[in-house]
Amino acid sequence: MRTIYWDGCIKMIDQTKLPDEFTILEINDVDDLIFAIQRLSIRGAPALEAAGGYGVVLACYERDFDNSERFKEYVKNRAEKIERARPTAVNLSVGVKRVLKKVLESRSIETAREVALREAERIAEEDIIRNKLMGSFGAKLIEDGDGILTICNTGSLATVEWGTALGVIRSANLEGKRVRVFACETRPLNQGSRLTTWELMNDGIDVTLITDSMAGIVMQKGMIDKVIVGADRIVRDGVFNKIGTYALAVLAKEHGIPFFVAAPLTTFDWEKEMKDVVIEERSPEELKFCHIKCKNCRIAPDDVKVYNPAFDATPLKYVTALITEKGVIFPPYDREVPKILRT
Amino acid sequence: MRTIYWDGCIKMIDQTKLPDEFTILEINDVDDLIFAIQRLSIRGAPALEAAGGYGVVLACYERDFDNSERFKEYVKNRAEKIERARPTAVNLSVGVKRVLKKVLESRSIETAREVALREAERIAEEDIIRNKLMGSFGAKLIEDGDGILTICNTGSLATVEWGTALGVIRSANLEGKRVRVFACETRPLNQGSRLTTWELMNDGIDVTLITDSMAGIVMQKGMIDKVIVGADRIVRDGVFNKIGTYALAVLAKEHGIPFFVAAPLTTFDWEKEMKDVVIEERSPEELKFCHIKCKNCRIAPDDVKVYNPAFDATPLKYVTALITEKGVIFPPYDREVPKILRT
Repeated sequence: MRTIYWDGCIKMIDQTKLPDEFTILEINDVDDLIFAIQRLSIRGAPALEAAGGYGVVLACYERDFDNSERFKEYVKNRAEKIERARPTAVNLSVGVKRVLKKVLESRSIETAREVALREAERIAEEDIIRNKLMGSFGAKLIEDGDGILTICNTGSLATVEWGTALGVIRSANLEGKRVRVFACETRPLNQGSRLTTWELMNDGIDVTLITDSMAGIVMQKGMIDKVIVGADRIVRDGVFNKIGTYALAVLAKEHGIPFFVAAPLTTFDWEKEMKDVVIEERSPEELKFCHIKCKNCRIAPDDVKVYNPAFDATPLKYVTALITEKGVIFPPYDREVPKILRT
Repeated sequence: MRTIYWDGCIKMIDQTKLPDEFTILEINDVDDLIFAIQRLSIRGAPALEAAGGYGVVLACYERDFDNSERFKEYVKNRAEKIERARPTAVNLSVGVKRVLKKVLESRSIETAREVALREAERIAEEDIIRNKLMGSFGAKLIEDGDGILTICNTGSLATVEWGTALGVIRSANLEGKRVRVFACETRPLNQGSRLTTWELMNDGIDVTLITDSMAGIVMQKGMIDKVIVGADRIVRDGVFNKIGTYALAVLAKEHGIPFFVAAPLTTFDWEKEMKDVVIEERSPEELKFCHIKCKNCRIAPDDVKVYNPAFDATPLKYVTALITEKGVIFPPYDREVPKILRT
């Protein structure tokens, strides 16, 4: 299942409608793309990188120009507008910049349109290849019959295709290993209950939905053999990922269960340490309302104080191995990670 | 704040309306009481025990009889109907039986009505006294400025007044100790976000709402000095309490934070072990819908498999101390608990 692709226009799965409806959005101009990004029809860093790239292609086709300089000026302005759609999403900007560079280097409008599409497709393909490589390296860690706990959505929907942590589970499944996945609902935005369960059910992979607070009991009862999560950023001493990941790591350690992190090398920020990273705090409304569909469904007092960090940091000492597109990295990470990053 | 009391009829806070509206229900007959219990206008074991007691008083006043035997027959039938309102709630039945016994022992209808009310009031008073004793013993464990993590609702609303774990926090506050409480929202039924925050805000106690999955980050950041939870049942080797309690205990141990359980001695079932207790599994719908207000707000695929245990078991080795109405019990529990139970 591919989250975003080019078919004369951008086509993408509308994630706001899942799991109720599976709809493919057709996006014909930059304004529609910006709207789709802002209302989270598409989300997840790698998916947004591809969206940024394809967005610049859209800009190339929006108007006819008889002057290549005015064409480039126009595309540049539109590209900047896409980048501003979600200013904190670095990957969106990375995708935009990569394709825009090719456009600005082109001699003719026709060439520019061709190379733009080629570069955007390359961004998407690279993500798929990276994920499949991660998947096949990671699948070696999975055994037939494993119970696997995961959090958030790290599947096709967060990437162009296949996924990171869910990609590993998919690859293991493809190799004929029957796994039982336990998906944490992932409060407060419920990516686990809305997206992960839906993806795995589509693939015919056994999945059971639990609340985040049930991670302890499923480990205690021996239902979990491995924990696999994704990562938003990996620094020299820890892994930043969806809030709740750290608790899973501590519980896994307490029960002697391996804890794996699957993430492409672009996620590594090895110059930094946990203390250098500021964790984004999101709106209190996310805990006060069952905001997913009906914004009026209040579940807490209006004026209650809320702490709502989007991520937490798991010290690397809790991580059994890091699964990347260049192989599985085991400790000591301070020696092994730089080796892989240099290759 | 008293959850349930007698004022010529039963009066109780309607918990289904919180935190939006504070409404006192007036209940004039047994059928209305059963309806209120079934739709969870009142909940929590100690509160239900008082409701059962007062319910028999209501039954005594429903009709006039000129024959004391026919009166007793009628009250007995009505009492049995109350007991069946929530068949798994043992405390409801305990309250009913205690007052019914007094009615059946009485010589006249007039005496029966008097002793019924006296016994029902005694049940309620005993709960309040027990909670306040627990509160004053437990408050000694709290220091000025403490950050305290808790889960579920263990306050006035779960009891007749004051509360168990929240009662300890209330008593500490009354002694002038300023505490900062962190309330886990308590998925899937959100008793933390709906009830605990509301109670503490009413008392002017500093409270911050977090998701259950944020317990790790608040401990890691040094915001928590103590964890205090309630208990549904305490057996020889562990504490059964709201799902998610076990994860808090493991996280507390990892961070060197004391983990306290506040519960009256009626909660102790010292003849049993964890393996003897079957954990109630609740409806999958609780994870598929944001059921709290609007039953149609779906947050997971319709046919997804769900595991929804209502409680988990925390081995006693994670528990720093047990707070009871007869004092604080420290390990070794196998020696100290029987001593207290015998007194």
